[in-house]
Amino acid sequence: MADKIIRVNMETKEITVKDLDERFTHLGGRGLTSQIVYEEVRPTCNPLGEENKLIFSPGLLTGTMAPSSGRLSIGGKSPLTKGIKEANAGGIAGQKMANLGIRAIVLEGLPLEADLHVLIVNDEGIKLQASPELKGKGCYETTDILRQQYGEKAAVCCIGPAGEMLMTNAGIATSDAEGNASRFAARGGLGAVMGSKGLKAVVIETSKKRSTEIHDEENFKKAAKKLTTMLQNHPVTGEGLTKYGTNILMNIINEAGGLPTKNFAKGRFEHANAIGGETLAEIAEQRGGSATHRCMPGCVIGCSNEYPLPSGKTISPIEYETAWAFGAHCEISSLDDIGELNWLANDLGLDTIEAGGTLGVLMEAGVIPWGDGKKALEALAEVGKGSPLGRIIGQGSVFAGQAFGVTKIAAVKGQHMPAYDPRSIKGIGVTYATTPMGADHTAGYCITANILKVGGVVDPLKREGQVDLSRNLQIASTLIDSTGFCLFIAFAILDNEDAMPTIVELLNTRFGWNLSVEDALMLGQRTLKVERDFNIQAGFTKEHDRLPDFMMKEKLAPHDIHFDIGAEELDAFYNF
Amino acid sequence: MADKIIRVNMETKEITVKDLDERFTHLGGRGLTSQIVYEEVRPTCNPLGEENKLIFSPGLLTGTMAPSSGRLSIGGKSPLTKGIKEANAGGIAGQKMANLGIRAIVLEGLPLEADLHVLIVNDEGIKLQASPELKGKGCYETTDILRQQYGEKAAVCCIGPAGEMLMTNAGIATSDAEGNASRFAARGGLGAVMGSKGLKAVVIETSKKRSTEIHDEENFKKAAKKLTTMLQNHPVTGEGLTKYGTNILMNIINEAGGLPTKNFAKGRFEHANAIGGETLAEIAEQRGGSATHRCMPGCVIGCSNEYPLPSGKTISPIEYETAWAFGAHCEISSLDDIGELNWLANDLGLDTIEAGGTLGVLMEAGVIPWGDGKKALEALAEVGKGSPLGRIIGQGSVFAGQAFGVTKIAAVKGQHMPAYDPRSIKGIGVTYATTPMGADHTAGYCITANILKVGGVVDPLKREGQVDLSRNLQIASTLIDSTGFCLFIAFAILDNEDAMPTIVELLNTRFGWNLSVEDALMLGQRTLKVERDFNIQAGFTKEHDRLPDFMMKEKLAPHDIHFDIGAEELDAFYNF
Repeated sequence: MADKIIRVNMETKEITVKDLDERFTHLGGRGLTSQIVYEEVRPTCNPLGEENKLIFSPGLLTGTMAPSSGRLSIGGKSPLTKGIKEANAGGIAGQKMANLGIRAIVLEGLPLEADLHVLIVNDEGIKLQASPELKGKGCYETTDILRQQYGEKAAVCCIGPAGEMLMTNAGIATSDAEGNASRFAARGGLGAVMGSKGLKAVVIETSKKRSTEIHDEENFKKAAKKLTTMLQNHPVTGEGLTKYGTNILMNIINEAGGLPTKNFAKGRFEHANAIGGETLAEIAEQRGGSATHRCMPGCVIGCSNEYPLPSGKTISPIEYETAWAFGAHCEISSLDDIGELNWLANDLGLDTIEAGGTLGVLMEAGVIPWGDGKKALEALAEVGKGSPLGRIIGQGSVFAGQAFGVTKIAAVKGQHMPAYDPRSIKGIGVTYATTPMGADHTAGYCITANILKVGGVVDPLKREGQVDLSRNLQIASTLIDSTGFCLFIAFAILDNEDAMPTIVELLNTRFGWNLSVEDALMLGQRTLKVERDFNIQAGFTKEHDRLPDFMMKEKLAPHDIHFDIGAEELDAFYNF
Repeated sequence: MADKIIRVNMETKEITVKDLDERFTHLGGRGLTSQIVYEEVRPTCNPLGEENKLIFSPGLLTGTMAPSSGRLSIGGKSPLTKGIKEANAGGIAGQKMANLGIRAIVLEGLPLEADLHVLIVNDEGIKLQASPELKGKGCYETTDILRQQYGEKAAVCCIGPAGEMLMTNAGIATSDAEGNASRFAARGGLGAVMGSKGLKAVVIETSKKRSTEIHDEENFKKAAKKLTTMLQNHPVTGEGLTKYGTNILMNIINEAGGLPTKNFAKGRFEHANAIGGETLAEIAEQRGGSATHRCMPGCVIGCSNEYPLPSGKTISPIEYETAWAFGAHCEISSLDDIGELNWLANDLGLDTIEAGGTLGVLMEAGVIPWGDGKKALEALAEVGKGSPLGRIIGQGSVFAGQAFGVTKIAAVKGQHMPAYDPRSIKGIGVTYATTPMGADHTAGYCITANILKVGGVVDPLKREGQVDLSRNLQIASTLIDSTGFCLFIAFAILDNEDAMPTIVELLNTRFGWNLSVEDALMLGQRTLKVERDFNIQAGFTKEHDRLPDFMMKEKLAPHDIHFDIGAEELDAFYNF
C-alpha cells in the first residue's frame, strides 16, 4: 500500500488524503519537506503569510527497527532566516506517523480569523479539533492535557506561547516515550509558522491496525542488526555518548579552545567542567536521575539524560548545545540554573541555542549581568508574558542585538551559532557559512575530523581541507536527515566502510528498491541543491554565505586565531 | 581655491584637510556622498561598525544665491535598509559649510571606547571637543546649548537619544535660520551611524573671512534670477506650496484615493481635512504662527510652517508626510496631537515618517488603540527612556511588526512607505520598489504627472508609462540632490524647457565648467548606477525591488484596486 500524503487547509479546514506522488517515491524526512517547500512555496513569500506551508515528514526508515532511526522532519520557509528550513527531532511522533503509513502532513493556508486547533491523526483518519482552551499554555501542560485526552501513548507535537505569538525563535516540541515534551524541532522559527496557521498541536495516536511496511523483512532485520553492531562497536556511539551523553563534549571542546565563552569573547570557559557531561552525570545519579536517556524508542546510543533538580522536578534533557548556550556563552556556571532555563525555554517553546544566544546578547548589552542565572531566568520568563522585553527575546539574537545596539552577534543568515567557535574549529565555520539553513552544526558536523578524529584527521586551526570536509558531510547529512536516522549514525559511517552500504540495504529492503550507494548520496546532493536554489530565489547571494565580520578581525584565545577561510574558498563549496 | 575634503578619524581623533580629489570635481551633495560610500565602504560591512563612513556634503550650488539651493546631503551605509543611503535636509549647515569651502566632511572609524564628541568647524579650522555633558539630550536642547556656546548664528547638526542608542530609525537634525533643530536628514538611520561614531553634533560657525566662490558672478546672478522667476511663476511652487505648504497635499491625495489610512487599509481618511494644510494654516494664523516658513535662507517657495500649540509652544514644521504618518496612518485626527508627536520625534531624533509608520503598526497589533494620540505619545516617549518598548519603536516599522507579530507592513528594503499609496498612485510604487534608498517618495516623485498634472499626465490608476516616468524622475532627482536644490525645483523643470539649461548654466558659471544638459543628467545617472551597484554588492537582488505582497492582493478603497506592475516591468527600470 502506498504511503499517504495528507494536506490540511487551515483556511477552509479541508483535509485531503492522497497516495504519495510518484516523483516523491524516494523522498522522506528532510528530502521530502525541502522538495515540497521548493515546489510549492513562493521563495519570496512572507513566512508567516498564507503562502508558506509547514510540512511534517518522518524519515524513510522512521518507524522501523533500524537502530536510532525514529526522527521526524519539519520544514517550511523560516521566519528567522527567511530561507528554507528543516528541523528534525526524536521523540515518538515520527514513528507513529510512519506506522500509520503517512509520509507527510502538509499544512497550508492561514485561518481568516485567529483560531486555535489541534490536528488528530489515528486509524480512523485525521481531523481538526477547535481547542481555544489551549491558548497560551506551555508545551509541557499542553502535552499533558492532550495525553490525558488521547491516551498516554499518543504522540504530541505542539507549540508554546512563543509560537502562538509568532516569535521567530519559536520551535516545535515533540514528546518522548515517557510523554515528556522535550524533544524539539527547534531551529529557525517553524513554531511561529505553526502558530500563524492557528495550529496548537498535532496528536498522533498509536495504530492498532498496522505497522510500518517492510518489503523484505528478513534481510531488513539482518541489515538492522549489522548497523546496530557497528554503532555499538564505535568508540563515540558505543562508549562516549552512551556513558555521558552529548554533554561529554563540554570538556573536549573547551580543551580544544573552541568553546565560545562570554558571547564569543574567548574559546575557554573556566567553569566548563562544572557544566559538562561528567558533572551532569554525577549530579543526575546522586539525585535519582540518569546520565543517559533514549530520545526515541529503538535508539542504541541513548545520548540524552534525565537531570532532576533537588526538588525532584526533571528539567532535562540538557544537551551539550543547550548547556553551552545558557552556560559558557552567558558565563553561567550552575547546571541547576542552566536546567531551569532549559525547562522554561522548552515550556515556552523556544529553541534553546537561539534563546541562550539571545540572553548572551542581553548580557553584552548590560541588560542582564554576566553569569547571573537568576536574572537570566527572569528575563526569559518575560517571553511568556508577551511584554516588550519578552517580544525582543523571543525573536532571537540578531533582533535583540539590534534592539539594544549590540553589533557583535555570532549569527549567519539570522540564526545564532551553536556551541563551536569557527575560529578555532574552522571546519564548522564552513558549515555555518554555507548551509542553506543558517548557522547550524548538524548540517555538516565537522567536529568529527576536526576534534574527534573520526573519519580522518583535519587540523581544526587550519584552512586546509575544511571546505571539502564540510561539503562531504553536508551531502551525507542531508541524506541522513532524509532517512530518519539520528545524525550520530555518521560516526559509524565515517569510520566503517560497510556502514553506508548497510544503510542503503535498509532502504532497499524496506521499499523493494535497488539503489546504489551513489544513488543514495545523489538524493542527499539533490536535496541540498534544491534548498540552495530556494534560497537564491528568495534573494540570497554568496554574500549571505559569510561569517560575521568580527570573526575575521577579533582573535580568539587561547589559540589567538581568527577565521581565515576567505570568500573565494567558501564560494567553492557549491561545486556540485 | 579648491574646495576641501575633511576627514575625521573617530578612533584616533586625527583630522586631515585636503584639496578635493580631481575625480570628485563634478560631485557634490548626494553625488559625492554616494561616490565616497561606493569607493570606500565595504558593501557587506556592518553599518554600525568601524568600516562604515558618514559623509556630510553640501550640494554643488549650496551656499550660493541660486534660489532654494541650500540643502545638505548626508550619506553612508544604512543600518535600516542595509543598503546605500543619502538623506538631505534644509537648514543652514550646508550653506555655512559651502561658504567655508568645504565640499565634504567624512567621518571614519569608531571610538575604541564609548565617548561623545562635538565637531566644531570654523575659519580657524576643525576640531573635536569631548562633550560628555550632552549625553542623552534631545535635539532641541542640544542645539540650544551649542548655539549658546558657539553663537546664535552657528549651524548645528546633531543626533538625539535615538542616535546615541543606535536605533535604526535615528535621523540627523539640522537647525534653521532661527535656530530651530527641526530640519532632518531623517531617513534610513544615519543618526545611528553618527551615534556609533560617538559624534553628538557638528557645529559650523559662520565664516567671517569668505563666502562661496563664484567663477562668473554676473552670469551666475542672471541665471539665478531667471530660475527664481520660473519658480515664482509656476502654479505649484509660486502659489500652492507658498500659500499652504506641503500639507496642501492632504486633501489632494485624499481626494485621489491615495491617502494611506489605518495602516494602508484604505485610501481615504474621513478626517483628512482636519489635519490638512488649509486647516493647519487657519489654526496657525489664529494662534500667531504662520502657514509658511522657509526651511533655508534664499528659498523662494517657503513651503514649511510655524504651528504653535495653544500654550504658544511651537511644534512645527508639520510637513505633509509627517501629518500623514502620525495622522491618517494612525487615524489620529487632531493636528495638536500630530504636532506633539512631531515635536517629540524631532527631539528624540527620529524620522517622523518611519516613527508614524511604526506607531501604526503598534495600533495594528493592538498595543495602542487606533486614533489615540495621547497613548501614541506615551508610547513614543518610551524611546527616550530606552525601555524595551522604546527600543522596539526606535527601530522602525518592520522591526516593530516582527516584535508584535504583525505581518502587514508597508515597507520596501526595510524602510516604511511615505504618504502615497502605490495601489492608487502606481508611479510612486515604481519609485518605492526600484530606488536604491528603500521606500522613498523623494527619490522619484511621480505624484507630479500622476496627480498634479505637472510635466505631463499619467493615469495614476494605470500601469502604462509609470516605469518610464519613475526612471526619468529618479535620474533627474539624483542630479537635483547633488546640486543642493530643493526637490521642488523639479516642478519648474518639468513644465519649463528653459529650467534645466538654466540650472546647468548655474553650475557652469559657479565653477567655470562647460557642461551640457546631457552631461549634467549623466552625472545623475552615474550616481544612481553607483548606488544600485553598491546595493548589489551588499547582497541585494531584484527580489528586493518589490512592494510588499499585500499590495498585490488586498485591494484599496475607494478605487478597489491593487498594485499590478509586475516583476518584469519593475526589472526593466534599470535599462541604462
